[in-house]
Amino acid sequence: MSNFDIFIGEVTGTALLILLGGGVVAGVVLKRSKAQNAGWLAISFGWGFAVMVGAYLSAPISGALLNPAVTLGLAIEGGIKWGDVPLYIGSQMLGAMIGAFLVWVAYMGQFKAHLTDPEILAAQPAVEGLVDQKTAPKAGPVLGVFSTGPEVRNPLQNVLTEIIATFVLVIAILTQGLNNSGNGLGTLGVLITSFVVVAIGLSLGGPTGYAINPARDLGPRIVHALLPLPNKGGSDWTYAWIPVVAPLIGGALAGGYYNWVLV
Amino acid sequence: MSNFDIFIGEVTGTALLILLGGGVVAGVVLKRSKAQNAGWLAISFGWGFAVMVGAYLSAPISGALLNPAVTLGLAIEGGIKWGDVPLYIGSQMLGAMIGAFLVWVAYMGQFKAHLTDPEILAAQPAVEGLVDQKTAPKAGPVLGVFSTGPEVRNPLQNVLTEIIATFVLVIAILTQGLNNSGNGLGTLGVLITSFVVVAIGLSLGGPTGYAINPARDLGPRIVHALLPLPNKGGSDWTYAWIPVVAPLIGGALAGGYYNWVLV
Amino acid sequence: MSNFDIFIGEVTGTALLILLGGGVVAGVVLKRSKAQNAGWLAISFGWGFAVMVGAYLSAPISGALLNPAVTLGLAIEGGIKWGDVPLYIGSQMLGAMIGAFLVWVAYMGQFKAHLTDPEILAAQPAVEGLVDQKTAPKAGPVLGVFSTGPEVRNPLQNVLTEIIATFVLVIAILTQGLNNSGNGLGTLGVLITSFVVVAIGLSLGGPTGYAINPARDLGPRIVHALLPLPNKGGSDWTYAWIPVVAPLIGGALAGGYYNWVLV
Amino acid sequence: MSNFDIFIGEVTGTALLILLGGGVVAGVVLKRSKAQNAGWLAISFGWGFAVMVGAYLSAPISGALLNPAVTLGLAIEGGIKWGDVPLYIGSQMLGAMIGAFLVWVAYMGQFKAHLTDPEILAAQPAVEGLVDQKTAPKAGPVLGVFSTGPEVRNPLQNVLTEIIATFVLVIAILTQGLNNSGNGLGTLGVLITSFVVVAIGLSLGGPTGYAINPARDLGPRIVHALLPLPNKGGSDWTYAWIPVVAPLIGGALAGGYYNWVLV
Repeated sequence: MSNFDIFIGEVTGTALLILLGGGVVAGVVLKRSKAQNAGWLAISFGWGFAVMVGAYLSAPISGALLNPAVTLGLAIEGGIKWGDVPLYIGSQMLGAMIGAFLVWVAYMGQFKAHLTDPEILAAQPAVEGLVDQKTAPKAGPVLGVFSTGPEVRNPLQNVLTEIIATFVLVIAILTQGLNNSGNGLGTLGVLITSFVVVAIGLSLGGPTGYAINPARDLGPRIVHALLPLPNKGGSDWTYAWIPVVAPLIGGALAGGYYNWVLV
Repeated sequence: MSNFDIFIGEVTGTALLILLGGGVVAGVVLKRSKAQNAGWLAISFGWGFAVMVGAYLSAPISGALLNPAVTLGLAIEGGIKWGDVPLYIGSQMLGAMIGAFLVWVAYMGQFKAHLTDPEILAAQPAVEGLVDQKTAPKAGPVLGVFSTGPEVRNPLQNVLTEIIATFVLVIAILTQGLNNSGNGLGTLGVLITSFVVVAIGLSLGGPTGYAINPARDLGPRIVHALLPLPNKGGSDWTYAWIPVVAPLIGGALAGGYYNWVLV
Repeated sequence: MSNFDIFIGEVTGTALLILLGGGVVAGVVLKRSKAQNAGWLAISFGWGFAVMVGAYLSAPISGALLNPAVTLGLAIEGGIKWGDVPLYIGSQMLGAMIGAFLVWVAYMGQFKAHLTDPEILAAQPAVEGLVDQKTAPKAGPVLGVFSTGPEVRNPLQNVLTEIIATFVLVIAILTQGLNNSGNGLGTLGVLITSFVVVAIGLSLGGPTGYAINPARDLGPRIVHALLPLPNKGGSDWTYAWIPVVAPLIGGALAGGYYNWVLV
Repeated sequence: MSNFDIFIGEVTGTALLILLGGGVVAGVVLKRSKAQNAGWLAISFGWGFAVMVGAYLSAPISGALLNPAVTLGLAIEGGIKWGDVPLYIGSQMLGAMIGAFLVWVAYMGQFKAHLTDPEILAAQPAVEGLVDQKTAPKAGPVLGVFSTGPEVRNPLQNVLTEIIATFVLVIAILTQGLNNSGNGLGTLGVLITSFVVVAIGLSLGGPTGYAINPARDLGPRIVHALLPLPNKGGSDWTYAWIPVVAPLIGGALAGGYYNWVLV
C-alpha cells in the first residue's frame, strides 16, 4: 500500500462517509427537505450506510480506516505501522472537510430556507460561554448537520458515552480478523461494520449523537466555522474536545482489550 | 452477451426497478393505500430494494446497468463497449416506461381516489410556465409517483445535488471491480448496490428526490404525460432536463475519477 | 428429497412464515401490544424476515417453497416434479393453519382486549353480502391479522395487483438459479428473497395487502372462521378467491416468462 | 475451546448484547435522548444488531451462545458438552450484568432527567404485591430499560408467548448447521441470526417484550435492583420467573424438535 493509496483512499472514503452522514442529518433536520422528520432510525441507517459506501470504496485501496480512533486501535493491535498514522489521520481530516463542504453544496437551498426562518432563529440557543451547566442548551440544528453535541451537557458522562460507543466500534472492526482469517475487510466485513454503526447509533447515540470518530466531528466543525452562512450560530468549541479525545481513548482501549485479553 | 440478452435483461430489470420504485412512492403518497404516510425511510428502502430486484434478475443476463448514467460511467471506465451504449439506453427507457405503466395498473383505484378528492385538487399547484422562481411550487403528489421534482427550485443547486448523488452511485458500482476481482456483480454486489441506493435516498434525496438515473425520470414522465388520468396536472417539463443531464455528468465524472485518480 | 422431507420442511417452514407474518400484523394492529402503530415499514420488514426464517429452516430440507404460487412457477420452470405439487401445497396449507393458530396463542390477551373494546366494535364494518361495491368496507383489523383485504374493492384491480406482485416474487426466486449456478437457494439467496418480500410489501402491498401466496391467505382465513373469538366479524369469503387465484396466475406467468423469454 | 475462551467470549459477547439492547430501549424511552420516540422498529433493529455485534465478536472465541436457552438447546442437540453448560450460563449472567451497568453509565444523565420528572413519576405505577390481576400495571419505563414485562399480565399467555418466541430463535440457530455444513456460525450466520432476532421482536415482541433469554432478563433485573437510582420503582420480581423458565422450555423444545423431528 503506497502513500498515495493511503491518501486517496482515506480522503475519498472519508469524504463519502461525511457527505452521506452529514447528508442524512441535513435531510432529516432542515426545512424544505423531502426527508424532514424521517426520524432517528433514518439517521442511524443513514450513518451506517454512509460507512458502508466509504468503506466499500476505500477497503481495497487504503484499508478503509476513515477514523483516527480506528487508526489508533489498529496501530496498537499491530494492523498498521505507527509511522503511517499521521498520513492516515491527515487524510481523514481532509476528507471529512471535503465531505462536509459537499453536504452544504447539496443542501444549499435547504440551509438558506432554514436559516432565514424567523421561528427557527428565535428558538436557536447560543451554546458558547455558558456559566450555568444546568441551563446549557442543545446545539442548534444547523450545527448538528456538521458536528455532534450532547443532550445533557455533562463532560464526565459525555466522555464515558463516547468511550463506550467507540470501544464497541473498534472492537467489532478488530474482530474482523478473527472472522476472516486476515484476508482484509471483505464485502461482508464492510456490511457487518455498517450494521455495527447502525447499532451504535440506535443504542448509544441518544446522549451525545455518537461522534465515535475525531475526524467526523472536528473536520466538519471547522467547515461550519468557515462557511459564511448567515445566522449559523456558534460552532460550540467548548464541547469540541470531547468527540476528539474520548473516541481516541475508546479506540485505544479496544486495541488493548483485543490484544491482551481477547486473543 | 448477445444483443437480445442486453435488450431483455435491461428491459425486464429496469421495468422491475421502476415498478417497485414508483410503487413505493404510490403506496406512501396516494389515498386509500395501506402504506400511506409510511415515510421517507420506507421510500428509501423501497427504492433500494427496487434496485436489488431489478439488478438481481438482470445481473447474470445483461450486467444490470439499468441506468444511462451507469452505462456512461462504465463506457468511460471500459467495462462495456461504446457501441452497445445506445442499445442499453434504449432498453432502459423502454423498461422504465413499462414499469411506470404497471405502477398505474397496480394502483389504479388509488390514483382514482386520489385524483377525485376535492381537497387534494384544491391544494395541487400548477408547475408549468412560471415566471417567478421564488413562488415555484413543488410537483404534485401524482407526478411524484412517476418523476422527481425539487423542493427548492434552483437549477444550479438541483444540478449539483444530482451530480453529487449520481457520482456516489456510479463510483460505488465501479468499485465492485476492486472488491470482486472482476467476477461480475455477484449476489453480494447486488445487495451492496441496493444499500448504496438506500444511502443516497436517505442522505442526498431530500432536495430533489434523487433521480440519479435519466431513464428512471424521463421514461415515467412520458408515461405521466400520456396516461389519460383526469386532474393529473402538468408533467413539469421545465424541470425535466435536470434529472437527465445532471446524472449523466455525475456518471461521467465518476468514470473519470475511477480511471484516472483511483486506480 | 423424501416425501417426509417435503412434508416436514414445508409444514414447519410455512408455520414459521405465518406465525411471524401474522404476528407482525397482530403486533402492529392490536391493542395492548408494545408494537402497536409501528407502521407499514415494520409490517413490510416483519413479513420479509418471516420469509427469511421459514426459508432458512426449510431450504436444506424441502427447498423452501412455502407458497403454492412458487410451487406452480417452479413446476412450470422444471425445478420440481408435477407429481410432488399436491404434497407441497397440502403441507403449505397445513403449516399456514398451524402458524395462524400460534399467532392467536401468542397474542390471546391482545385479541381479547381488542375484541372487547366498544369503540373498536362500533367502528368495525360488516364485509359480507354487500350489494353496493362502492360502499364495500375494508376488512376489520382482527381479520387483517389472518388474511388480506383490499383498500379499494375492485376485483379487476385486486386481481391485477396480486398477479403483478406475485410475478415479481416468483421471477426473483427463479432468478436464483442464474445467480447461484443451481446449488440451491443458499444463505444469500434466502436473504435476497426476504428483501424481495420487503420490497413487494413496500411497493405493491398498499392496494391489497400482498397475499402473493394462496396458502398464506386461505389457511389463516379458515383458522379465522374456526376460532371461537367473540365479536370477530365475518371472514370476508367474497374476497377469498382473489388471493388464491391471482397469485397462481402470477406464479405461472413468471414460470413461463422465465422459461420462454428470459433463458 | 478452552474454559477461558468460553468465559471471555461469553462475558464480552453478552455484555455487548445487553449494552446495545438495553441501550436502544434507553435511547427510545428516556427523556433528553436524541432517539426518544424512535419507535418499535428502532427497538427491534437495535436488539437484532445488538445480537449481531455480540455474536460477531464471540463466535470465533466461544461460539456465540450468549443465551442460556440457546445453551440448553445446543446441549440437547449435541453441539456442546453438558459439562460446559454451567460455565456458559454463569459467564452469560456476568456479561449481562456488566452490559446493564454500562447502559446506566452511557445514559446516566438521561436516567436522572427521566427519574426526576414529576409527570413521569406521577404516571409510574407500582407493580409488586398486586392482588387484582386485571388492574396489574405495565412495568415502568426505567425498568423496561433493564428487563421485560407483559402488556397483559396473564402468566399462561406470557409463558406461551416466550416459549414460542424462543423456539423460533433456537430452531433458527440450530438450522445453521444444515445451511453451513458444520463450519460454525460464520459471518453470514451471524447476520441471519441478527435478522431472526429482528423478526422475533417485530412479530412476537408485542405481548411480553421478548426476553427469549434468561440471562438477558434476570441479569439486568438484578442490576436494576442494586443500582441506587432514586425513584426507580420496584423490579417486578413477581414476573421475573417467566422470562427465565419459559425461554428454557422453548429452547429445550427446539432442541428436541430439531433432533427428533427435523433431522
